[in-house]
Amino acid sequence: MIHVGIIGAGRIGQVHARSILTGVPEAKIAAIADPYLSDAAAAWAKDIGIEGIYKDYKLILNDPNIEAVLICSSTDTHAQISIEAIEAGKHVFCEKPVDQSLARIADVEAALLASPKKLKYQVGFNRRFDHNFRALKDAVLAGKIGDVQFVRISSRDPEPPPAGYVGSSGGIFMDMMIHDLDMLRYLSGHEVVELYAQGAVLIDPAIGEAGDVDSATVSAVLSNGALALIDNSREAVYGYDQRAEVFGSRGCVQNANDCPSTAVISTVDGVISEKPLWFFLQRYMAAYQAEIRAFFDCIANDTEPEVGIEAGRISIRLALACKKSLAEHRPVKLSEIEG
Amino acid sequence: MIHVGIIGAGRIGQVHARSILTGVPEAKIAAIADPYLSDAAAAWAKDIGIEGIYKDYKLILNDPNIEAVLICSSTDTHAQISIEAIEAGKHVFCEKPVDQSLARIADVEAALLASPKKLKYQVGFNRRFDHNFRALKDAVLAGKIGDVQFVRISSRDPEPPPAGYVGSSGGIFMDMMIHDLDMLRYLSGHEVVELYAQGAVLIDPAIGEAGDVDSATVSAVLSNGALALIDNSREAVYGYDQRAEVFGSRGCVQNANDCPSTAVISTVDGVISEKPLWFFLQRYMAAYQAEIRAFFDCIANDTEPEVGIEAGRISIRLALACKKSLAEHRPVKLSEIEG
Amino acid sequence: MIHVGIIGAGRIGQVHARSILTGVPEAKIAAIADPYLSDAAAAWAKDIGIEGIYKDYKLILNDPNIEAVLICSSTDTHAQISIEAIEAGKHVFCEKPVDQSLARIADVEAALLASPKKLKYQVGFNRRFDHNFRALKDAVLAGKIGDVQFVRISSRDPEPPPAGYVGSSGGIFMDMMIHDLDMLRYLSGHEVVELYAQGAVLIDPAIGEAGDVDSATVSAVLSNGALALIDNSREAVYGYDQRAEVFGSRGCVQNANDCPSTAVISTVDGVISEKPLWFFLQRYMAAYQAEIRAFFDCIANDTEPEVGIEAGRISIRLALACKKSLAEHRPVKLSEIEG
Amino acid sequence: MIHVGIIGAGRIGQVHARSILTGVPEAKIAAIADPYLSDAAAAWAKDIGIEGIYKDYKLILNDPNIEAVLICSSTDTHAQISIEAIEAGKHVFCEKPVDQSLARIADVEAALLASPKKLKYQVGFNRRFDHNFRALKDAVLAGKIGDVQFVRISSRDPEPPPAGYVGSSGGIFMDMMIHDLDMLRYLSGHEVVELYAQGAVLIDPAIGEAGDVDSATVSAVLSNGALALIDNSREAVYGYDQRAEVFGSRGCVQNANDCPSTAVISTVDGVISEKPLWFFLQRYMAAYQAEIRAFFDCIANDTEPEVGIEAGRISIRLALACKKSLAEHRPVKLSEIEG
Repeated sequence: MIHVGIIGAGRIGQVHARSILTGVPEAKIAAIADPYLSDAAAAWAKDIGIEGIYKDYKLILNDPNIEAVLICSSTDTHAQISIEAIEAGKHVFCEKPVDQSLARIADVEAALLASPKKLKYQVGFNRRFDHNFRALKDAVLAGKIGDVQFVRISSRDPEPPPAGYVGSSGGIFMDMMIHDLDMLRYLSGHEVVELYAQGAVLIDPAIGEAGDVDSATVSAVLSNGALALIDNSREAVYGYDQRAEVFGSRGCVQNANDCPSTAVISTVDGVISEKPLWFFLQRYMAAYQAEIRAFFDCIANDTEPEVGIEAGRISIRLALACKKSLAEHRPVKLSEIEG
Repeated sequence: MIHVGIIGAGRIGQVHARSILTGVPEAKIAAIADPYLSDAAAAWAKDIGIEGIYKDYKLILNDPNIEAVLICSSTDTHAQISIEAIEAGKHVFCEKPVDQSLARIADVEAALLASPKKLKYQVGFNRRFDHNFRALKDAVLAGKIGDVQFVRISSRDPEPPPAGYVGSSGGIFMDMMIHDLDMLRYLSGHEVVELYAQGAVLIDPAIGEAGDVDSATVSAVLSNGALALIDNSREAVYGYDQRAEVFGSRGCVQNANDCPSTAVISTVDGVISEKPLWFFLQRYMAAYQAEIRAFFDCIANDTEPEVGIEAGRISIRLALACKKSLAEHRPVKLSEIEG
Repeated sequence: MIHVGIIGAGRIGQVHARSILTGVPEAKIAAIADPYLSDAAAAWAKDIGIEGIYKDYKLILNDPNIEAVLICSSTDTHAQISIEAIEAGKHVFCEKPVDQSLARIADVEAALLASPKKLKYQVGFNRRFDHNFRALKDAVLAGKIGDVQFVRISSRDPEPPPAGYVGSSGGIFMDMMIHDLDMLRYLSGHEVVELYAQGAVLIDPAIGEAGDVDSATVSAVLSNGALALIDNSREAVYGYDQRAEVFGSRGCVQNANDCPSTAVISTVDGVISEKPLWFFLQRYMAAYQAEIRAFFDCIANDTEPEVGIEAGRISIRLALACKKSLAEHRPVKLSEIEG
Repeated sequence: MIHVGIIGAGRIGQVHARSILTGVPEAKIAAIADPYLSDAAAAWAKDIGIEGIYKDYKLILNDPNIEAVLICSSTDTHAQISIEAIEAGKHVFCEKPVDQSLARIADVEAALLASPKKLKYQVGFNRRFDHNFRALKDAVLAGKIGDVQFVRISSRDPEPPPAGYVGSSGGIFMDMMIHDLDMLRYLSGHEVVELYAQGAVLIDPAIGEAGDVDSATVSAVLSNGALALIDNSREAVYGYDQRAEVFGSRGCVQNANDCPSTAVISTVDGVISEKPLWFFLQRYMAAYQAEIRAFFDCIANDTEPEVGIEAGRISIRLALACKKSLAEHRPVKLSEIEG
């Protein structure tokens, strides 16, 4: 039985807690910590049998019975808590991004290297564990489409965030396209060597005033010579639109959105099927469960996480390259981005 | 907090237990009983925090703190335990069928009527709670397709049961098509007044030798004059095939199967998408959760279950009418079947 | 160069003329005859270069240069003209049905047998030449689905005919389901040995007053033991709905409707695709061309038409069996229908 | 009756001739000219009733009865014949591209302006007349998706051309992506102001040795601020892959490929549907017919062709901008390309 502590009792912390309860019988949530712990969250934690309910996460790190932590706190604390947790000898599952700064990510990597224990460190790129994206990856790995020649990823949110969010989040490349940049590496099995970003403010002028774009594209070249295209929008009024396609020498594989049902209604007005699932937690619930399941499997079997600190670092480099490309209006090589 | 006892610790009992644990926070599984309780099942029950672990279900019925029971024991015990549970003042969720005999079902109904308490009694027709079938029903209820004129239901199992099973189960009409007969009433919102059944042994001769058919069709007339067709097969090699279509004066609504992913692979060999989910527990897991959720909602809100004893009784009458039609090679009116 | 005469210059006659012009370079339309030839039709015929434009079809039959005729006149003249054409030594393509009476069809068969020439006689079951239905047949023939165990055919017209039509047409089984009965034989590769028909008046009471039904189902048993279900409706408000499914020991093949385009629009109101093609001539235009192409191939290569007089006769027997089943409210064996 | 002459009796010339014969009753093909006229082509022309069969196209231009010409000769002759035809007072339908040089296209425009007659000049961008692409355009025009924010076009050939072809054709941007660049303008209703091209040799090294790429992407910015992405491949082994998607403030519209049939086969190996149509003439046959139909409608109704000389010119500018972008490895503004 692996004892785990959850740091951050917000929405995603609770999602992971539920995943452990229902899908990881060999793990026990020993404690949860949140400096802003609400009464409701405390009651919820008590209800599901968590014994240690704290404001200070250090109580978790100091608990020798706890082997692993899930870092679900605000982004700006991820790196610091990661380092402290590693130094305390805990396995770490850290929500993405590890940090917006490559230097801070390097600090985390250094801590991991310095640790005498072979600690597991997994970054929360949940989409890699999604059934629809994993099916693409499986097809590529199985050789069904031959050598990868082209990858396309479309990712559109159902609603734009408040303009205020884009400042702290690092903007569309850092908080949204980062998933697609990681997905591009995952699906293709190759590295991005160069990319060219375009952006536009087409949805909410306030996002533009905050210094970001709300619509973006990326054209990329991969290490095997393949090409790739990504498009992002902050608002797809029909729902959360998440699709990809991988094209190769022997064929092509693509996925479509998940919908609430397969029902199709034919009337004089047309043939109408369901819109994509709207809410990311609903759309990716099984993926959140699978990534947590995988984290504990890595601990139990002493295997490396599929999405470790390197994937976390490279995704940030790619997002920084996008920002640089948009700012300088030219293609940017990944090698131009330190880290 | 509603205390519930589960009678029968087999596969479906465990499924329901998990649904309560993860989806019904206001219910607590106080006890479980099974005369053939395995050590593994007992360990599992203990693990998930069930305090009362019994061989004798009467210990559950005698516990005054337990308000509700789930009857998940073998089919031949459903009616007897139902009656005893009702007499003990418990709300009852009973797996289908209540009984193969209309007389025994009448006994259960009599017990319900005789009870001084307004007890809830829900029969486990899980498919009514499935998202794909519910979407059809919602479309019909919303008037999207106008007046119902025709219903078609296809239901095919991935693998045939052992021939030995068909004797105890009552055969294809009683154990398999019964779901579709109930679905027909549910989707159309009308009663079946007459039906004509056909059957054939095309898959496993042993099923024929056991006196049953492995392929069957039903042609039905509904109380509003609409027509209906059902087809059943014991073996669809590509997976569990569960589809329906409702056609009316203003349109048509149909559903398709759920699949493991939306991935589609295009190669020189064709454009290949995923097969339907193979296993009924996987296909209908969300429906099992929803029916249990609904049962406790009925108790909490004092509303009537959507699938009560009457639905249980009528489904048996319809299955008996099918058997009679096949045996006598003629259309049979439901009014010919007593009960 | 095969010289051909077209008897009947109405809509379908003109369709066939166009098919010959554009797709059968080795045939030449030498003449057309129609007792009610309109000025517009005569002008059209002249425009496309037809030299013989007659009121009396006997002028065509008497022309020794004409080797083949297409009988596109009113249904009640098909048998008589067929016999005369055969006696005149012409190959015959006859629109369906050959006749509503089995005795008259027998007369045509007798004429064919009596002819000293090996004349070709093809009946206009155009759907056999449709790409979507042929793809099902090809899959069955290629063994893709193994042994046929079940066939389902749905056939729904976009608009009901005038009630007056159902008297002369012979009713829904004779003028509409006859296509599906023939399709059932075609797709399965087996004969229908027994069927049970149901019908209802759900769309237009005037059709009921005229002695017919506007909604119908058939449950059938095939010669290999397989089961089959057919549903018909005179009015599908979303368009011409023509689908089938063949299920067997190794899989299942089904088709869907053809639509004006593959465009799919996603909005807040849903995901909307196109309705099926509305008009049968548009839906089956390629099939009409293919059947005419096939007729001339039979002549050129001295092969037997895929849909000969026997298929025409059996389809009528099946339609008569349906009528008898509905009238007598019981399953009817095909052997009960003489012919 | 409009008399028309066809210059060039190769494949596409014959396609257009057939379109006129079967779909443009008010036009008469008076003559055809081809310096390399084969005996087979001459026989074909005679068969379909063309009276003037020439080697020298000037005989067509000198015929005062001929009002319109279709230029289907080799690309390098398009501009010269266009100018001569305009000077001879003929309406012109010219296969794409008008010329690879903007200066030559300017000459054609000058000739059109200098003509005392209001001559029609249509360029053969057939895909604008395709049902699947037109459905996207119709949805955009109808406001179904609101303001255009993003356009994506995928265009993949089933087989690469001989490497020798890419020299004379102008390469992938000039002979293949030119269709997509025109489609981008058509679908969006906006101009391309800047684009960034990427290319790779992933399929046939000989194409690389000939100085071209066989895989290419373009990232574009449109005049309304919208973004766009295009991908091209010379070889999609599963067939001719032609899809687009337009995304806007109120929704998204996308199309899919046309297939030989709608049949879907479900077996243990998966659920298999048909590959896209392989051959461009089969895929776009209806579009070829529609563009010819539209050309004669413009003449008859004195309206402007939807795809005139300007569209022809802009498509070349865009292709040249792509080539420049790839060569200089930077985004290129359309304003950098003269013309």
